[in-house]
Amino acid sequence: MIRTAVLGATGYAGIELVRILSGHPEASIEILGSQSFAGKPISEVYENFAHVLENECEKLDLDRAAECDVAFTALPHGASKDVIPSLIERGLKVIDLSGDFRYDDVKVYEKWYKQEHSSPELLAESVYGLPELYRDKIKTARLIGNPGCYTTCSILGAYPILKSGLGSSENIIVDAKSGVTGAGRGIALPYHFCECTENTKAYKVATHRHTSEIEQELSKAAGKDVMISFTPHLIPQKRGILSTIYVNLNKKCTTEELVEVYKEFYRGEYFVRVKEAGSLPETKHVAGSNFVDIGMVVDERLNRAVIVSAIDNIYKGAAGQAVQNMNLMFGLDEKTGIANAGFYL
Amino acid sequence: MIRTAVLGATGYAGIELVRILSGHPEASIEILGSQSFAGKPISEVYENFAHVLENECEKLDLDRAAECDVAFTALPHGASKDVIPSLIERGLKVIDLSGDFRYDDVKVYEKWYKQEHSSPELLAESVYGLPELYRDKIKTARLIGNPGCYTTCSILGAYPILKSGLGSSENIIVDAKSGVTGAGRGIALPYHFCECTENTKAYKVATHRHTSEIEQELSKAAGKDVMISFTPHLIPQKRGILSTIYVNLNKKCTTEELVEVYKEFYRGEYFVRVKEAGSLPETKHVAGSNFVDIGMVVDERLNRAVIVSAIDNIYKGAAGQAVQNMNLMFGLDEKTGIANAGFYL
Amino acid sequence: MIRTAVLGATGYAGIELVRILSGHPEASIEILGSQSFAGKPISEVYENFAHVLENECEKLDLDRAAECDVAFTALPHGASKDVIPSLIERGLKVIDLSGDFRYDDVKVYEKWYKQEHSSPELLAESVYGLPELYRDKIKTARLIGNPGCYTTCSILGAYPILKSGLGSSENIIVDAKSGVTGAGRGIALPYHFCECTENTKAYKVATHRHTSEIEQELSKAAGKDVMISFTPHLIPQKRGILSTIYVNLNKKCTTEELVEVYKEFYRGEYFVRVKEAGSLPETKHVAGSNFVDIGMVVDERLNRAVIVSAIDNIYKGAAGQAVQNMNLMFGLDEKTGIANAGFYL
Amino acid sequence: MIRTAVLGATGYAGIELVRILSGHPEASIEILGSQSFAGKPISEVYENFAHVLENECEKLDLDRAAECDVAFTALPHGASKDVIPSLIERGLKVIDLSGDFRYDDVKVYEKWYKQEHSSPELLAESVYGLPELYRDKIKTARLIGNPGCYTTCSILGAYPILKSGLGSSENIIVDAKSGVTGAGRGIALPYHFCECTENTKAYKVATHRHTSEIEQELSKAAGKDVMISFTPHLIPQKRGILSTIYVNLNKKCTTEELVEVYKEFYRGEYFVRVKEAGSLPETKHVAGSNFVDIGMVVDERLNRAVIVSAIDNIYKGAAGQAVQNMNLMFGLDEKTGIANAGFYL
Repeated sequence: MIRTAVLGATGYAGIELVRILSGHPEASIEILGSQSFAGKPISEVYENFAHVLENECEKLDLDRAAECDVAFTALPHGASKDVIPSLIERGLKVIDLSGDFRYDDVKVYEKWYKQEHSSPELLAESVYGLPELYRDKIKTARLIGNPGCYTTCSILGAYPILKSGLGSSENIIVDAKSGVTGAGRGIALPYHFCECTENTKAYKVATHRHTSEIEQELSKAAGKDVMISFTPHLIPQKRGILSTIYVNLNKKCTTEELVEVYKEFYRGEYFVRVKEAGSLPETKHVAGSNFVDIGMVVDERLNRAVIVSAIDNIYKGAAGQAVQNMNLMFGLDEKTGIANAGFYL
Repeated sequence: MIRTAVLGATGYAGIELVRILSGHPEASIEILGSQSFAGKPISEVYENFAHVLENECEKLDLDRAAECDVAFTALPHGASKDVIPSLIERGLKVIDLSGDFRYDDVKVYEKWYKQEHSSPELLAESVYGLPELYRDKIKTARLIGNPGCYTTCSILGAYPILKSGLGSSENIIVDAKSGVTGAGRGIALPYHFCECTENTKAYKVATHRHTSEIEQELSKAAGKDVMISFTPHLIPQKRGILSTIYVNLNKKCTTEELVEVYKEFYRGEYFVRVKEAGSLPETKHVAGSNFVDIGMVVDERLNRAVIVSAIDNIYKGAAGQAVQNMNLMFGLDEKTGIANAGFYL
Repeated sequence: MIRTAVLGATGYAGIELVRILSGHPEASIEILGSQSFAGKPISEVYENFAHVLENECEKLDLDRAAECDVAFTALPHGASKDVIPSLIERGLKVIDLSGDFRYDDVKVYEKWYKQEHSSPELLAESVYGLPELYRDKIKTARLIGNPGCYTTCSILGAYPILKSGLGSSENIIVDAKSGVTGAGRGIALPYHFCECTENTKAYKVATHRHTSEIEQELSKAAGKDVMISFTPHLIPQKRGILSTIYVNLNKKCTTEELVEVYKEFYRGEYFVRVKEAGSLPETKHVAGSNFVDIGMVVDERLNRAVIVSAIDNIYKGAAGQAVQNMNLMFGLDEKTGIANAGFYL
Repeated sequence: MIRTAVLGATGYAGIELVRILSGHPEASIEILGSQSFAGKPISEVYENFAHVLENECEKLDLDRAAECDVAFTALPHGASKDVIPSLIERGLKVIDLSGDFRYDDVKVYEKWYKQEHSSPELLAESVYGLPELYRDKIKTARLIGNPGCYTTCSILGAYPILKSGLGSSENIIVDAKSGVTGAGRGIALPYHFCECTENTKAYKVATHRHTSEIEQELSKAAGKDVMISFTPHLIPQKRGILSTIYVNLNKKCTTEELVEVYKEFYRGEYFVRVKEAGSLPETKHVAGSNFVDIGMVVDERLNRAVIVSAIDNIYKGAAGQAVQNMNLMFGLDEKTGIANAGFYL
């Protein structure tokens, strides 16, 4: 049994981790870290857990943490940076769900996050936790920067067309739509039910931090610097991200040929489902699962590909992917505990 | 491994059964019965199943069915009656999700369903599949009449107060609210998104068939004939039923005392969660799980109890309960494959 | 032109008032009172008003208010009590949307609101602003206690059956379901989109203040003290209340006969629509309008009537009814500016 | 009074027209045309109209139609083409909500609609009913091709940047999100509540007919042939379209400068609201109104503008714009009856 600590267990990403781990056959939840709800059973904070998991939330105690094998840090931004070095020092593996350990270049982090990085040496060591691209490195890593939700969806959607050389690195547009769980459980007027329902909007146009994370990975795919337009939108649903990605083609191809490129690239990947030509992803096909669905249409009139990718933002975009990383780090089949189909309903 | 056939696999109750069974450690899905989608992989009908379960749907073939241990019949009303005797004859156990095998008295069935019953002798043998009340009989049954969604929620909510003699059998009101999955996947104007969203309505007031099923069981609890007002409502959400039950008290008691009666009655029942005084059920606490949450308030001013019970209508109210019954019929721990917490998000 | 002041213009009831008044042919909005947004154009607080109404919000200034003919006070609870006497003194008519001026008996107020009333003499003078019951008194009133949302829906639904003597005053149950605008614009975890959507729950069972207001009016209808069970529920939609009301019958009657009683009682009432037997209200039929829809079924098996009434909680249940009252107080046709059909979509 | 006929009154665009016209001070509804509901009062088909408008629906009778001044044709595709010449012949002005009379070039129509045009001479005469671009021609037209919903939103969003020469005509991407009313009232599985809610998807990628209509108008703005990527998405809400438009810049400019270009272009346009830099449209700001909100961000890093425009698809995108056209054709202030702010709630 892998002994796990979930730090920040009562946020939305944290509680989804708890939900997944509570059904994981090879992991136990030893610590439910929560500053705000310390002393309270998790089943009072999230009443769906009554009779299933009734452990008390607790404040961070590094000595107790030291008894665990791995910590998931789903802490408010900045907080994880102080905690993580201590956890690593005590011999834990750490999977961090914040943006702090996702970057190859500390300068890119500091530019987009507008602050100095407190552990540049750990950043240098950390591995970007996107198993479909970095499986081998993840297996031996001590510290994982678990990818963002928009980024997981967008990178996996655009990677093969760039890697294959079929797609141009110029004029890439990523137009992404996210459900409201992506904003977390903090309360604020824009997330009031009456303000959210029956409403769609764009936000942080041209400035969202995930832009830099997507560009980092797509630049590696293209073999040169890629800059993209990334526009996040808030849509009135709980779970789900749909990224619509526009890429100009370097040479003519059909939808079927492009699908074949994707199928080849993702051959053997359980969690990536490339749709046949004529079929496109929908967020309800992935909600509640670790799958990434990718479909595409080549617009031969314009010599441009439109690629649509979908994930569940708090599952493959956060908690599920974190568990996928844990599975890899501890030598398990990466599907363990997360192989299920989505809810659909 | 229990070899299962799901007949009517592509309706909402059927596909939820498939989803639950696909993660069940002791059961395999051998047959996905569907008249409308025969020949098509289930993963094309419900694309969330791609990579998880890709078996083809098939028309009913009794000889193939004979290789299974158990059949779940989630067929359109009437259809199951023709099929079930043949399945029983071939040695299968059958768990029927229609209303056909839920009644003690064939006359009650014929009055509320306005048709003759085609297998009265099987009806006489069948067991009402509410494990919290009929666990022992279920264990040895060949044929289960799996309870309705409204009825599961309402019977479990009202049973203890009547059984204990605290509640009067006169003037019982059950006001129930259901999500739209309860109406099934058939298309019709009232279930068009634009007609359903932002809308709440009552329907089939004083005439809904589930009335008779609730009355049958509550009469046994009270030890005399009980007649109730039952009003179903459609609310703009997918999953969930909330029943608000009004029962006059035969003698004064406090909320705490009533809670104690319920806790005692349901002691040891994993799937029933009685809320402490001051706390009430919400459908989001049970969605995606097999739990029934029950809370209550004694209105001392009126000497009346208000009991609120909540289930997921397609899980505990249909597919999950069917699996709970299967577990019992095959000697498994009844929680096998359905012990999980709900989705919450 | 009637010169109006809307105090508390930026809450949900306030802004609905502003929306209605901005299209009213005989009223002008002179003052948009808002403590929190003083100095800001209303069209920045609610951007739907850009190009329509761009006046600045302002803090309360009694001298400026004195130039108006009428003030609508949609203030946080308690606040209106201090302001209203000053407004009355300056010669304004006042329509108060809080609970402070709805009671015949100050003791009932003080019991349910758990505080002393600061203006008992004004309370004695105030008129309960339900035009269908108190039209004549409203016409000459200086101070209106505008009814609550649940109460408008429930009183109008139950009044005729009690007034006619057909319904028993014992065992009345009012089970009401409300959209989330009823909770106002204040932010709190229960109103976070992800907590509200796909969720239904009961709250304040047996203790909601509107109970006392409904009982006050139904007692007058019945000619004796009436006590009711009133259970509010929160449902995942913005607008709409549906009250399902259970009343035992003093003598047998058919649905058609009961419908006739209601039609007779509400003859000539534009805003009350009594449904024919066989048809029932839905909240989408009234959303965005001042209508009350009432339908009913007599359950002859139980000798009980089930009456269903529906309103838009922030229109007929707050802002629209306030304008209806204003129209009456200033000698206009009461339909002026609010005669429109609901949105439906 | 303008005497109007609404043909196809019981679809979603039709009933929104009826709702708007029922409050229009200068128009009367003489004919409610409906093949399916002929003989039934409109208030039984849409119960929100009880007490407001109770006229019977009727089958098309050209002699009765001849008594009207104008007909709105909101008929199923193809149907309007047969009817319109007869109406014109009888002296009516016609505002057609189908795609049949929106094209300058019959060949473009025939290519995208995959059928021969039955009245090319009327097409040649018809005027494209986008008042912000063709106000003068509309005033004297006999036949208006009322623009599509996606097209109204997208054309008005992109026109000024192309007209001004600031934007490049290459690599224009229009990524649009629409509520479900856009699909109409026809029933089909994809519009079942349980399939729509909590779901977002793209559809008709690279093939949607509105592409050609947007290209027609943007080509005029740019002064040369423009081809765009247009991707429609279905989002889980009733009303609202949000178009996110990506345009490369021909020369550097700031967000503020681009806002100024838009403000200048739309100076005096009541129904177009250009947002200040830093503020962006949301569909809830326009739902229930005839407004188009347009906001923008210049991404100086990429030398690209991201323009976001929002409308209510069945109001400004269909019924409201049709009334705006009627107002112009009959010499009224174009705001008559449609000047109101949106619902917000």
